Amino acid sequence: MSTIKLAIVGVGKIVYDQHVPAIAGNANFTLLATASRNNTIDGVASFPTIEAMLAAHPEIEAVSLCMPPQYRYKAAYAALSAGKHVLMEKPPGATLSEVSDLKRLAAEKGVTLFATWHSRHAPAVPVMKAFLAEYAPRKVTINWKEDVRQWHPNQDWIWQPGGLGVFDPGINALSIMTEILPRAVFLRAAELSFPENREAPIAADLHFTNADGLPVEAQFDWRQTGKQSWDIIVETDKGELRMADGGAKLSIDGVAQELPPEAEYPSLYSHFADLIQNGKSDVDLSPLRQIADAFMLGKRQVVEAFHD
Amino acid sequence: MSTIKLAIVGVGKIVYDQHVPAIAGNANFTLLATASRNNTIDGVASFPTIEAMLAAHPEIEAVSLCMPPQYRYKAAYAALSAGKHVLMEKPPGATLSEVSDLKRLAAEKGVTLFATWHSRHAPAVPVMKAFLAEYAPRKVTINWKEDVRQWHPNQDWIWQPGGLGVFDPGINALSIMTEILPRAVFLRAAELSFPENREAPIAADLHFTNADGLPVEAQFDWRQTGKQSWDIIVETDKGELRMADGGAKLSIDGVAQELPPEAEYPSLYSHFADLIQNGKSDVDLSPLRQIADAFMLGKRQVVEAFHD
Repeated sequence: MSTIKLAIVGVGKIVYDQHVPAIAGNANFTLLATASRNNTIDGVASFPTIEAMLAAHPEIEAVSLCMPPQYRYKAAYAALSAGKHVLMEKPPGATLSEVSDLKRLAAEKGVTLFATWHSRHAPAVPVMKAFLAEYAPRKVTINWKEDVRQWHPNQDWIWQPGGLGVFDPGINALSIMTEILPRAVFLRAAELSFPENREAPIAADLHFTNADGLPVEAQFDWRQTGKQSWDIIVETDKGELRMADGGAKLSIDGVAQELPPEAEYPSLYSHFADLIQNGKSDVDLSPLRQIADAFMLGKRQVVEAFHD
Repeated sequence: MSTIKLAIVGVGKIVYDQHVPAIAGNANFTLLATASRNNTIDGVASFPTIEAMLAAHPEIEAVSLCMPPQYRYKAAYAALSAGKHVLMEKPPGATLSEVSDLKRLAAEKGVTLFATWHSRHAPAVPVMKAFLAEYAPRKVTINWKEDVRQWHPNQDWIWQPGGLGVFDPGINALSIMTEILPRAVFLRAAELSFPENREAPIAADLHFTNADGLPVEAQFDWRQTGKQSWDIIVETDKGELRMADGGAKLSIDGVAQELPPEAEYPSLYSHFADLIQNGKSDVDLSPLRQIADAFMLGKRQVVEAFHD
């Protein structure tokens, strides 16, 4: 087949770090243009808005949407309405309802919509999923603790309503949780900590369970200095699964497993090409739904002000 | 057909006021038993738990779940697992994720699950829906303002996490909004007012829109004394729809419309019987999803303490 003519909307750190190299390494895609208020990619035609870009390059077949989630619906709606396939960075939107509407529109237009969860493509994830399909989990502990000043310096949007605060990294953990566990889990209680000067939580303690009463305890914290943790520990009758580094490492009962090298974004673009070629969409809202549930059901506490 | 042997779980004000008369008036159902911690219905066998009730009366075919939403999942799971059809009062649960799991279980068991939204059965609703399918809305204003001391005296669960606060009545407005509008709407901003001594909001200002940019403004307030409002006003090119009294009244361009008498709960039970007879479920989560979106996206402000 000929390559898929692709454009990127919303150029920032994640685009330079991950999307550009992943696209360059995938023979199915040709990067044709970008639309972004502030940034450009060397050697690629750039436009200030998605509307200007699609008008100038009607041959674009697919777009990757990488702006903050509060601005994603409008761009996705424009692209899908124009008959383009759409890949969305996580989280797929500021609300569940808007993403449900996009899902309907993609089906109506007969194009592909792919709501990505890059952490599901971490090397440990399929190994854990296969293990837990065979040996039932007895207890799950999730520790997702990082230093927001290091990973999200001066990213104001992340503290705005819809920016999700500590759930922005935490949604990666939830995307793995909802992928590897054999039965659906749901929240039974949560405590969210809001800095007194911010609109989004800096920490969250989440207590999930499922129909079997499985305990799933998650701690998200953005105030972690020193050692950073992106770990999921699952106890089973056949030993303990210990995932670390966001899914790059896995040990089973203390024995480090050999895993392929990390290739989350290359895997996302391979999957996007497959979806387009097969005329399918992939929109699983369950990680974002768990977060909406946490905001709805969680107790709030106000904590010390946060300054970048 | 023979009548459907029905039980009620969670006996309180709404059961005495609405469910019992609606069931008594529907020849498709026979009320066989109740399970409730505190209350009973004269002349009906009563049990302290759903498990005890189902063990004593295996011939029960369907159950209505009317306890607070925080306790609904466990009862629904027990009933569906036992192969019973299930009707759930609104809201259908404390989280979206748990209700999604129940939907899956009902499909797996081949039984009916009905997540009810009684306000959708108000007499004005089908009239408004048909009108708006023909004449596009230009602006929607929702005023849902009542005195919590009058309508929910000393109902502590409603102020707990998962009790939803002012969204407990507000979800009725949202169930109508999501039913009558021809295109899906989603939140773009919200402000939620939490009393300083409570875990749930006492007021909410919600700003929705849709793909066409339709403005939908909703104000929910539990501090209303004097005249109570359960009104939806829709401006169209063909005049103004003005729904009042939660859907019992409707005027079009100032002309009061003749409507059948209010019969929300009888209509719910007629629909439940139809669903059972046709082997179908009816689980539309969109009203609760809009609320989860409001908690996730909304700005919070702390207001004066509330005391019953």
